[in-house]
Amino acid sequence: MECGQEEQAPVVEPEVKNRQILFRDFLTGYPKESNMVLSAGTIRLKLPSCEQGSDSKAILVKNLYLSCDPFMRHMMTPEGGGYATPYTPGSPIVGYGVAKVIDSRHPDFKKGDLVWGITGWEEYSLISEPTLLFKITDTDVPLSYYVGLLGMPGLTAYAGFYEVCSPKKGEYVFVSAASGAVGQLVGQFAKLMGCYVVGTAGSNEKVHLLKNKFGFDDAFNYKEEPDLNMALKRCFPEGIDIYFDNVGGPMLDAVILNMRSHGRIGLCGLISQYNREKPEGIYNLMPFLVKCVRMEGFRVPHYYHMYPQFLELALKYIREKKLIYVEDTVEGLESAPAALIGLFAGRNVGKQVVVVARE
Amino acid sequence: MECGQEEQAPVVEPEVKNRQILFRDFLTGYPKESNMVLSAGTIRLKLPSCEQGSDSKAILVKNLYLSCDPFMRHMMTPEGGGYATPYTPGSPIVGYGVAKVIDSRHPDFKKGDLVWGITGWEEYSLISEPTLLFKITDTDVPLSYYVGLLGMPGLTAYAGFYEVCSPKKGEYVFVSAASGAVGQLVGQFAKLMGCYVVGTAGSNEKVHLLKNKFGFDDAFNYKEEPDLNMALKRCFPEGIDIYFDNVGGPMLDAVILNMRSHGRIGLCGLISQYNREKPEGIYNLMPFLVKCVRMEGFRVPHYYHMYPQFLELALKYIREKKLIYVEDTVEGLESAPAALIGLFAGRNVGKQVVVVARE
Repeated sequence: MECGQEEQAPVVEPEVKNRQILFRDFLTGYPKESNMVLSAGTIRLKLPSCEQGSDSKAILVKNLYLSCDPFMRHMMTPEGGGYATPYTPGSPIVGYGVAKVIDSRHPDFKKGDLVWGITGWEEYSLISEPTLLFKITDTDVPLSYYVGLLGMPGLTAYAGFYEVCSPKKGEYVFVSAASGAVGQLVGQFAKLMGCYVVGTAGSNEKVHLLKNKFGFDDAFNYKEEPDLNMALKRCFPEGIDIYFDNVGGPMLDAVILNMRSHGRIGLCGLISQYNREKPEGIYNLMPFLVKCVRMEGFRVPHYYHMYPQFLELALKYIREKKLIYVEDTVEGLESAPAALIGLFAGRNVGKQVVVVARE
Repeated sequence: MECGQEEQAPVVEPEVKNRQILFRDFLTGYPKESNMVLSAGTIRLKLPSCEQGSDSKAILVKNLYLSCDPFMRHMMTPEGGGYATPYTPGSPIVGYGVAKVIDSRHPDFKKGDLVWGITGWEEYSLISEPTLLFKITDTDVPLSYYVGLLGMPGLTAYAGFYEVCSPKKGEYVFVSAASGAVGQLVGQFAKLMGCYVVGTAGSNEKVHLLKNKFGFDDAFNYKEEPDLNMALKRCFPEGIDIYFDNVGGPMLDAVILNMRSHGRIGLCGLISQYNREKPEGIYNLMPFLVKCVRMEGFRVPHYYHMYPQFLELALKYIREKKLIYVEDTVEGLESAPAALIGLFAGRNVGKQVVVVARE
């Protein structure tokens, strides 16, 4: 039976405009705004009736907040960087977002529900398999937090710090990209645990934020340090127990020189390398061995089972004002490409969020 | 009171010859035989009486077997490679050995005891602090095993494989320098656990040994492989769960490309790098992250508390003929420098031992 034939008089929902950010084509080097294009599509705000009675568990959502995350750079390469399905040239950018359910055939979601998870860079998205969506039940916090502190970056910081880095009270903790979506949380978790925490970031404004807003014990602007090894020795005369690494490259190599015996490196991201055709090398394997360092790569999907316990803790900390969060917000879907590009130049101060609509 | 004055008529033991291998001076690049020199010293085969009544816990030993180990290269640099006290130019080479106690002021050792641990490259050694000596109680196995299978390399293989690499039955295990003192044991431990084991070594003779004597499932001569990545893909079409690394360098980098998700790398040694002025880089950090690999450096002194349980297991396996051990033996203290140099050219087949005396 063909679509539209199963009902006598199907009510056809009128089409509305649905602006989209389409991915142009795979690229090398730094992404540019011109790698994405704003397109004026249309959509019907009701799931197609032809799928009634089928196995469809599709939902239709209105996107409210979209997230700019470093991993999205990998999806702009044909192999997806080994992370995820690469983008489809000509189709919308895919990423994390907060959205409101408009229509649903899925038993777990109903019209009006708020959700966070994987969606498209467009005003409305038809999500045929909403397996990567979480329902939002706590709304006494800013909704946008669900693409940051209370979403994937939050769980990344939580699992990466507590599970991968095995922290102990009083240890020396170093965080790179420390004012970013993940780094600012790692630093605060470490402080809450009683660690000594130093962060690095790429501007004096961010360094100020680390020391005066997030409560880091110390911080430095890596762009103003002629010798990273010396900067680390100055900040950590006793050495580093834990390095939460978001950047890789020469900073990682310099950190290894400064690790303490049985130190741990949680490898969360390598943003300094994502736009290079050939990666920079790590040379300090001998100190790594001698100091019995442990380095572990990790990916947040392996920790989604911990989301409920993480959410409970994070909400408690937010309500007690023990955890603060800084976002860098731009307005309008059309601002999204520039915001995403800005990540790789370090233009954002705090978690980069795009507001598509507020409700 | 000066030495020799505390007794009325001290019996002076006659001096005997005590040939020694002296360390000349710190070096860069590959060590050469000329970095060591055979010297004709003398010694009295009794602890000096002047130390009677003092706090001395010295012992005097006759060295039987001496061990050539890769870590000794580090002690030929002024910093000791971060491993241990550097050698003293003009003094004997220090390393692991099996020895017999000739005289003792230490309550734990008595004349006639057999010991293994840190001693000097000389016929007789006066050891003022025998804290790094273990008493040998099981003598139904070759005594030389206590510088190999039943000594530091054995414990290294045991702790590194079982503790650091967290192996599970059926996993894919790769071992470099696989016919060496440590590698041959790691491969056999892995087989005994039910893993699939592939080794690499630097000659066809060693590859033959791996496959036909040590029971590795497969092996290859890395010197005959134009592309290490391809060689690993051929041997491990399903990828590698555990890499027990004795060599570092380009092999480590190629292995990372072939690791399975949540694979583990035990970093035991980096012999391919020890004689380089600048280390080679590791570039595959992105696959490391994506596959959530864990890499950990380890050093055997942190596992000496496990020696009794290791010894019990190893002796059981030896007696049941489940564990075999291949040694490369040279005769005479004067042969020691060439034997040590040979390690870095891969000339030894199996554990390199120097026989100074058999009893």
